[in-house]
Amino acid sequence: MKSEDLKAVRAFVKQHLDGRYAELDAFEEKPSEVYERFRETGLANWWLPESLGGRGLSLEDGVELVNELAYGDAGVAFTLFISVLGTSMVELYGSEELKKRYLAPMAERGSFCATLGSERAAGSELGKIDTVVAVDGDELVVTGEKFFSTNTDFADFLLVVGRSAEDPEQSAMVLIPRDTPGIEIVKRWDVIGVRSSYTYQVSLKGCRVPAANRLAGSGLRLLEIGLNASRILIATTALGIARRIRDLCMTYAKTKPLRDGVLLDNPVFAAKLGQMEMQIDVMKSHLLRAGRDYDAVMASPDAADLWHRQGTLKSALTAKMFCGQTGWDIATVGSEMFGGLGYTHESPINKLMRDMRYISIVEGGDDVLRDLVFSRYVIPVPRRS
Amino acid sequence: MKSEDLKAVRAFVKQHLDGRYAELDAFEEKPSEVYERFRETGLANWWLPESLGGRGLSLEDGVELVNELAYGDAGVAFTLFISVLGTSMVELYGSEELKKRYLAPMAERGSFCATLGSERAAGSELGKIDTVVAVDGDELVVTGEKFFSTNTDFADFLLVVGRSAEDPEQSAMVLIPRDTPGIEIVKRWDVIGVRSSYTYQVSLKGCRVPAANRLAGSGLRLLEIGLNASRILIATTALGIARRIRDLCMTYAKTKPLRDGVLLDNPVFAAKLGQMEMQIDVMKSHLLRAGRDYDAVMASPDAADLWHRQGTLKSALTAKMFCGQTGWDIATVGSEMFGGLGYTHESPINKLMRDMRYISIVEGGDDVLRDLVFSRYVIPVPRRS
Amino acid sequence: MKSEDLKAVRAFVKQHLDGRYAELDAFEEKPSEVYERFRETGLANWWLPESLGGRGLSLEDGVELVNELAYGDAGVAFTLFISVLGTSMVELYGSEELKKRYLAPMAERGSFCATLGSERAAGSELGKIDTVVAVDGDELVVTGEKFFSTNTDFADFLLVVGRSAEDPEQSAMVLIPRDTPGIEIVKRWDVIGVRSSYTYQVSLKGCRVPAANRLAGSGLRLLEIGLNASRILIATTALGIARRIRDLCMTYAKTKPLRDGVLLDNPVFAAKLGQMEMQIDVMKSHLLRAGRDYDAVMASPDAADLWHRQGTLKSALTAKMFCGQTGWDIATVGSEMFGGLGYTHESPINKLMRDMRYISIVEGGDDVLRDLVFSRYVIPVPRRS
Amino acid sequence: MKSEDLKAVRAFVKQHLDGRYAELDAFEEKPSEVYERFRETGLANWWLPESLGGRGLSLEDGVELVNELAYGDAGVAFTLFISVLGTSMVELYGSEELKKRYLAPMAERGSFCATLGSERAAGSELGKIDTVVAVDGDELVVTGEKFFSTNTDFADFLLVVGRSAEDPEQSAMVLIPRDTPGIEIVKRWDVIGVRSSYTYQVSLKGCRVPAANRLAGSGLRLLEIGLNASRILIATTALGIARRIRDLCMTYAKTKPLRDGVLLDNPVFAAKLGQMEMQIDVMKSHLLRAGRDYDAVMASPDAADLWHRQGTLKSALTAKMFCGQTGWDIATVGSEMFGGLGYTHESPINKLMRDMRYISIVEGGDDVLRDLVFSRYVIPVPRRS
Repeated sequence: MKSEDLKAVRAFVKQHLDGRYAELDAFEEKPSEVYERFRETGLANWWLPESLGGRGLSLEDGVELVNELAYGDAGVAFTLFISVLGTSMVELYGSEELKKRYLAPMAERGSFCATLGSERAAGSELGKIDTVVAVDGDELVVTGEKFFSTNTDFADFLLVVGRSAEDPEQSAMVLIPRDTPGIEIVKRWDVIGVRSSYTYQVSLKGCRVPAANRLAGSGLRLLEIGLNASRILIATTALGIARRIRDLCMTYAKTKPLRDGVLLDNPVFAAKLGQMEMQIDVMKSHLLRAGRDYDAVMASPDAADLWHRQGTLKSALTAKMFCGQTGWDIATVGSEMFGGLGYTHESPINKLMRDMRYISIVEGGDDVLRDLVFSRYVIPVPRRS
Repeated sequence: MKSEDLKAVRAFVKQHLDGRYAELDAFEEKPSEVYERFRETGLANWWLPESLGGRGLSLEDGVELVNELAYGDAGVAFTLFISVLGTSMVELYGSEELKKRYLAPMAERGSFCATLGSERAAGSELGKIDTVVAVDGDELVVTGEKFFSTNTDFADFLLVVGRSAEDPEQSAMVLIPRDTPGIEIVKRWDVIGVRSSYTYQVSLKGCRVPAANRLAGSGLRLLEIGLNASRILIATTALGIARRIRDLCMTYAKTKPLRDGVLLDNPVFAAKLGQMEMQIDVMKSHLLRAGRDYDAVMASPDAADLWHRQGTLKSALTAKMFCGQTGWDIATVGSEMFGGLGYTHESPINKLMRDMRYISIVEGGDDVLRDLVFSRYVIPVPRRS
Repeated sequence: MKSEDLKAVRAFVKQHLDGRYAELDAFEEKPSEVYERFRETGLANWWLPESLGGRGLSLEDGVELVNELAYGDAGVAFTLFISVLGTSMVELYGSEELKKRYLAPMAERGSFCATLGSERAAGSELGKIDTVVAVDGDELVVTGEKFFSTNTDFADFLLVVGRSAEDPEQSAMVLIPRDTPGIEIVKRWDVIGVRSSYTYQVSLKGCRVPAANRLAGSGLRLLEIGLNASRILIATTALGIARRIRDLCMTYAKTKPLRDGVLLDNPVFAAKLGQMEMQIDVMKSHLLRAGRDYDAVMASPDAADLWHRQGTLKSALTAKMFCGQTGWDIATVGSEMFGGLGYTHESPINKLMRDMRYISIVEGGDDVLRDLVFSRYVIPVPRRS
Repeated sequence: MKSEDLKAVRAFVKQHLDGRYAELDAFEEKPSEVYERFRETGLANWWLPESLGGRGLSLEDGVELVNELAYGDAGVAFTLFISVLGTSMVELYGSEELKKRYLAPMAERGSFCATLGSERAAGSELGKIDTVVAVDGDELVVTGEKFFSTNTDFADFLLVVGRSAEDPEQSAMVLIPRDTPGIEIVKRWDVIGVRSSYTYQVSLKGCRVPAANRLAGSGLRLLEIGLNASRILIATTALGIARRIRDLCMTYAKTKPLRDGVLLDNPVFAAKLGQMEMQIDVMKSHLLRAGRDYDAVMASPDAADLWHRQGTLKSALTAKMFCGQTGWDIATVGSEMFGGLGYTHESPINKLMRDMRYISIVEGGDDVLRDLVFSRYVIPVPRRS
């Protein structure tokens, strides 16, 4: 990554996000024009490979960028990076044809894709999905109800996981262009935080696509692989939000009167901020390492095979767990820092707290992740840290 | 307290609050008609003495009632009990005339009063207030800007703390009828939780009242004394909210599929709920004790003097600290229990979390209270527990 | 309880325990002469009923006494109260003959009894015990290996739980005099804290007693009932230790130089001690309530039946959980307070930390108790707090 | 580092430390022969530069080695790495002559050095030291009382910080050979953990050394610089101990009966171990990063100047804070895992808990470090993470 890229993102945050928290929290009807502004930086979908016209930035770079974006607004960050979940599956397991047809335009236009995994009765246990993928000649017909999927309404295409009509033990990941008949947006979810992002409940009724739109391999395994990048970047939003909370506290403490001085001079305040900074520093170390772990697999010529064997990356799991917990701890401290004013919508702290809450909830709660870490990385002795 | 009273409150909660969380969270323009309904129970302002036509219930009883009310809605509970802060000061330090004129109607009509303490530059440090109380013949003239005060707009009267124009070292607590010229509601605060309650910023411009409307003693000391009852009841709302969270979790767990069964059968869930129940049980023990501590002072014929010497009741401080912290811990666990749906406004959990947040913020944050406990109850060896 | 009793215990602590922590931590070969000194107060086995020559103090009184004793030394406190586990079973479920023969001398002489429940393969799951109680004419023959039992070597008698040789589904609680042939002390456990107490592994080889030495009812249920009093008093030791830690911190802070003053003036120190005092205050509220809950059942003429139906008292479980967790939190803060010196045996803090650790371990770890609270007090809706 | 080095350390741990916890915890009179055995690996003082005959391993390598050593025994690890505090100061700020005379033999013989900083009245505030360094012709005379210093008795030489007799505002770091007259070991501290290490109180009475034995620069600043490497490695011992606790838990859980199976199958156990593994993984990420941060400064040709400007490395502070806190959390969970047996000296868990406690205590408690992080790395905006 060139240092200009980071500067460009910082400038974008400063110009388009800073001070607009009320607006970004307002649950507006259409994606904000800030997404247009981000496209102008040339960094939209920064991870798409250069061979497809993208910037080809690594996930370690992505951690740096998302850290800055989430410092501005976590919902904007989420909207801007969550397509990586879908594109990474296409990049690894799609045909050259699919990549050219669907990823190249995303690189060029800075547009979005969406991944549709969870269903009402299949949240943390994706093995319970009911969406069906049936073969009909050289076409696939996809039918089902998907619960939470982000960016769907304005995405170029959807990646939908379903089970095979022919063999319910098999699952498939199918790329469905957004304009395919049968895709219906049931509703947009009224989420409590990251409210500048757009998450939908979606119905798929007999959506037909060419058989070649199915990615290679088990759909559930592919989803698991795709979640590695997105979990690391979701975890990274905790870092950006935490840094914003810290800076808000510092700004406030400089002028908040306390006894004969200001809050900044108070040792209890110093202790809280020292602890917060430590936590921020550790989050950053771990996120960058998780990014490098991911990049190391991707750098292999056998990346697709390696991922297939590996599935869930350990540091992706531990990053989301750690940053979700630590971020919440910071949000808790922050939310008590601003007195009564902090309990009103006049202070940004409560938005930051609500934004922070999503880290531990989306893409697997801690109970699910602890269980995964235990079964995949503690039971097998050589995989322990 | 007769057992019918508790039953009446439970019935009120069931009939008028249950299932209406969206509405109660909606920040409506006028106090909800639920306050009318509560009056019909005959329990409005349950603590007012029988000699003034009230029910004369103890604070220990109050803990039981607020526990039930907050199980229904914390904002409703807050609105219904917060007048105790003002009435207890009038009862202890007002003339018989004032009590008859102002408390008796509250008992009869189930109406409200408001206490105006904090100012923009005097939140946790009330010694910094700027509101001035000047003597003008046999009248007092009160002028100032008050930051957070609950129920003011629809209160019968206001209790305002200010410093004496004649001697800035002295402070006074003055009863000002709501219809006194010069009271201006600057705005209602857009709070993040307890949104069925009404908290205002208020301007007082030369409000004139008879000199007899001044309560006896230092205004700041009186405020400290009045806060004992309200802090205990604020702490109690944590208990009610926590019980609601527990019950929501149990209801959810009965039908939420997990592996081959439901969440209810999961040992990790059982461990979380067992811990939560322990915390609820301990909160209840401590709140009832704090109520009894308060009642014991009130039962003395010298209550006014005793309070004057004592000031802040230890268990009122420790109850607010403990229930604020423990309640937040429960809200944190609860807010991760409901998966993605819990991150939307379709689930009541996020309202409960926002409601819970107020316990540790209003009427003194934990930093302030820890400091008070230390200086008042740890430094003096015989006052240690 | 007469106020002289509390004074007598405080005087005992001051005279015989204060300043002797190294000695009391030394794992001496024989019970310290402090136990003789305690007998002289006339308060040994303070809970034994007056009808048997005891002091007949309530468990609420017991909480006050153990609080003081544990302030002196938790191991001494444990030794002095743990007989209650056995005597309460005899009092409730033994014949008048047994009570006269075994409890009356304990009241007179201030001697000890021991309860033998756990086995190597039956710690938290007592249903797995292997000790066998066989009927042989009008005698019982008891054979087995008991893992942890306190006071056994110098006890007057043992209460041993075993399963019936005739019907392995049935369990029995049998009183075995200490001098019965076949009792062998396998070893004394080298515990890490409460080292002035004496806990043994014991072998029982064909110990013969009259059939009348069997208490009425299921042995396992009786044990569960007996644990109520001991769990509350174990929890109470956390309170005593915590108060000692607080006072040690305060004493240290008065002379420990920090910058231009002493540690006592430091706001971070004040915040820690304010928090600690709050925790102590809440522990005390809950322990006294648990004591009263216990006393309320005991005050009933049907106490034996009531207990049989109730089994484990809710507040006994929650008190042990809460005080174990809160005490450990306080020990953690305390153990970091004394700098490098606190990491040596020259400071009592590390003994206090090791003593504190036992609260959450003996008589059921938190995992076991959380599970019990959940199944007994959360699942049944009316038993929720 | 060659992979054989890591293998050699693992073999050393397996052969000489595993299973000997009672012995290593026994506070033996003389350094154990395990130190001799470690010398045989050729890795003693692994960090000494190749130019002086050392192995020249980086601090990142050191983190890997200490992780393995502390998995074996934290006290042994501490003894083996703590000389780095002294040697790094000599390497950076000593003359070539001093390096050749004192560091080269340490590389050759695998011997030790000691650093003497703290005094009775100068623990966390080293600015308060009273030890005096006086110039007498071309000699220095050092006199003072040093409180905690590790390895001193069997060290080749001591690095002593004192204030200048001529200008008390100035401090000096002086190298004093162990056999210098006037060095008296007052006592060895009876520490509660890391008991295979040796920490002493030391008296210095008119110890004379050549003036050239003074290192260049402020003694206090040099000490601060030296602490960077040792704090990172102290933090690393938390990682090793934590991994050992995890593995002990797993071994225990495989055979510990629980209901119809073993503890390993219990979801609550899985959740605890999943959380623990996450914490271990994050500690490792951060420690390796701290090592690289340190190595990056050392790799500069201006390392001595860079350090002089930088002083305390941020990640050294945050690593010790984080690993101390996280390690204690793991020790707390671990210490409740083994039932009653875990409360006896028959289980290694309590030694591991006591060992773990030192991380947050030596070389600055968390209060001191939080304050340092705040003043050095939060107040200056560009140094925030």
